[in-house]
Amino acid sequence: MNDFTFQNGTKIIFGKDTEQMVGKESKAHGKKLLLHYGGGSIKSSGLYEKIVNSLKEEGIEFYELGGVKPNPRVSLVREGVTMCKEHELDFILAVGGGSVIDSAKAIAAGAKYDGDVWDFFSGKNQVTECLPIGVVLTIPAAGSETSSGTVVTNEDGWFKRATGHLTMRPQFAILNPILTYTLPSYQTACGITDMMAHILERYFTNVKHVELTDRLCEATLKTIINNAPTVLENPTNYDARAEIMWAGTIAHNDLLGTGRIGDWASHDIEHEISGIYDIAHGAGLAIIFPAWMKYVYKHDVKRFAQFANRVWDVELDLNDLEKTALAGIKKTEQFFRSIGMPITLSEANIGEEHFEEMAKKATERWALGNFVKLQEEDVYRIYQLAK
Amino acid sequence: MNDFTFQNGTKIIFGKDTEQMVGKESKAHGKKLLLHYGGGSIKSSGLYEKIVNSLKEEGIEFYELGGVKPNPRVSLVREGVTMCKEHELDFILAVGGGSVIDSAKAIAAGAKYDGDVWDFFSGKNQVTECLPIGVVLTIPAAGSETSSGTVVTNEDGWFKRATGHLTMRPQFAILNPILTYTLPSYQTACGITDMMAHILERYFTNVKHVELTDRLCEATLKTIINNAPTVLENPTNYDARAEIMWAGTIAHNDLLGTGRIGDWASHDIEHEISGIYDIAHGAGLAIIFPAWMKYVYKHDVKRFAQFANRVWDVELDLNDLEKTALAGIKKTEQFFRSIGMPITLSEANIGEEHFEEMAKKATERWALGNFVKLQEEDVYRIYQLAK
Repeated sequence: MNDFTFQNGTKIIFGKDTEQMVGKESKAHGKKLLLHYGGGSIKSSGLYEKIVNSLKEEGIEFYELGGVKPNPRVSLVREGVTMCKEHELDFILAVGGGSVIDSAKAIAAGAKYDGDVWDFFSGKNQVTECLPIGVVLTIPAAGSETSSGTVVTNEDGWFKRATGHLTMRPQFAILNPILTYTLPSYQTACGITDMMAHILERYFTNVKHVELTDRLCEATLKTIINNAPTVLENPTNYDARAEIMWAGTIAHNDLLGTGRIGDWASHDIEHEISGIYDIAHGAGLAIIFPAWMKYVYKHDVKRFAQFANRVWDVELDLNDLEKTALAGIKKTEQFFRSIGMPITLSEANIGEEHFEEMAKKATERWALGNFVKLQEEDVYRIYQLAK
Repeated sequence: MNDFTFQNGTKIIFGKDTEQMVGKESKAHGKKLLLHYGGGSIKSSGLYEKIVNSLKEEGIEFYELGGVKPNPRVSLVREGVTMCKEHELDFILAVGGGSVIDSAKAIAAGAKYDGDVWDFFSGKNQVTECLPIGVVLTIPAAGSETSSGTVVTNEDGWFKRATGHLTMRPQFAILNPILTYTLPSYQTACGITDMMAHILERYFTNVKHVELTDRLCEATLKTIINNAPTVLENPTNYDARAEIMWAGTIAHNDLLGTGRIGDWASHDIEHEISGIYDIAHGAGLAIIFPAWMKYVYKHDVKRFAQFANRVWDVELDLNDLEKTALAGIKKTEQFFRSIGMPITLSEANIGEEHFEEMAKKATERWALGNFVKLQEEDVYRIYQLAK
């Protein structure tokens, strides 16, 4: 186990009707806030009205910025930053899924910075402080509701880049599983894939003696796998929605990575795809993760065999651990397919035309991954394996 | 899953040499602190000197109060409260195990209160604020390093009582597994039992659909069970000590109880024993938990069978789940014995003479437990089962 520091003080408010707490919780952190959201779904569902009423009841002044798209754009972030500076806003309330929260985090960092907010993503500068953020989560997937990171896309060149800082962790996150009842199956499945990927990125590590976090990862994966069919068959099953929602947060609140070094190559490889093609991040991960696994499993067959055994209940073949390992990868692929995800690029109508360009862009700053270091050629081959 | 609120912002600083951070971390919270500790072991081990040097390097003024005993006494707490008020101390640094931290928490609450600190334990008043607390942990066991509760004993009548408040969570907890190398086997085993008991108290619940937290509990229990023999056979095995230490914190940081109602009867039943007999809390739990299990398992045979299967790898007998359940209880008992714990009161030289009195005192305020509500007669029978 590596030495580590872990702190995650985000207040989780979980359960039915919890969105009604938003005014009271926001008031503890700010007086004049930016209400940030995506498309029209929060208006048609009635959530917008509830939020606005709760803010008004507490006498909180607010400005609105909607229109966040999946793979949130830096242009909208810049608009938000300008609004925060112009109106001296002191708190950002994100109502939505990972894209909205990530956009809010970028605005929160930009609002405290004199330069262009993209500097934090290009590597030109580092975040040191942020406006406080609150979240009402509507899509369990990204784990951004308690994480310290954000991913934003720059339309000028379609660069999708990440940055982070501990002050980016939201002050509170309101999680009501009922708000996820209306999520379409495809989006639900993308979210499930995304949260599983967050765990897998941490699971495949070269750090030895990480038994507790291995087991916590496996426990969370098993829960997601076990509840996924239920939420897809019966979208209004509260219990299963609740398990998935809480698992999505645990998957990415940094606890499961304590004492480990995560990999994160698959995320980077996928970012190039969803940066160019605007495919859902989860769907991209369902395609890339199995391809990545096939490319790297020989690096640590025992770890892949443990994964197959403990997560997928594949019997260990001690005389042929590679067989066990490969069965686990197969099970992963089959699971993604069973929840309606594409598992090849061609299923997502993505051809080979940008493979070289994407492999080059993905590795232009540094080699990807930690479990196995991947150069441009490796990334290209993974795209080939995924086609 | 029940609705819940969860927040635990304690900063964990985990790993080798981390005690050298204590001055810097303390300085972020206070200027004039109370250094609180137990007996002479931190002096003989050299830890005391390191702590004092680190505080001096940061120019932190401090007063000292040592002498905390296992099952910490309210008399020493009162002394600490007086010192805090007299010298206007603004931070408490606890260096030790659960008793020292619990004592520090009680002082932290008393220092902000005009009445007698025991009011918080007798139920006369409730904690609303505390001085901030920092911890250097030397005994992984109680989980007090990130928990919001404290247990203190009043020598006047030997009442052992608990209280808590969210402001009692330490600001930081420094966890260096090397500091636990010198713990004697018996104390190590008591700590292991205590952390397992914290998980078991949460595990046995009547709340349905708690799959994620069930699995997280099982993961943490399995890790403890798997590493316990290693730390007992080889006290300087860093990896195993690290697993046990981190598991002890996770066991009681409230995450594993999210959405559940824990039981806690065994803790209350044990408190009467260690209140009177001054037996180690962990040893008392090793005796009481199996007896409690035997007394209540019929209330939910399926849950006990799941416990046997998932934690102890007992094969499920679907035609006789009671057999599976009983095998799990037997395994628990055998495990406690294997790590050197007593599993009957007689092994701890405790006779029947106080059974009636302890059962009466344990239930004088309310019935114990949530999984099964226990009255005086039930508690008496559990002492009988444990004799």
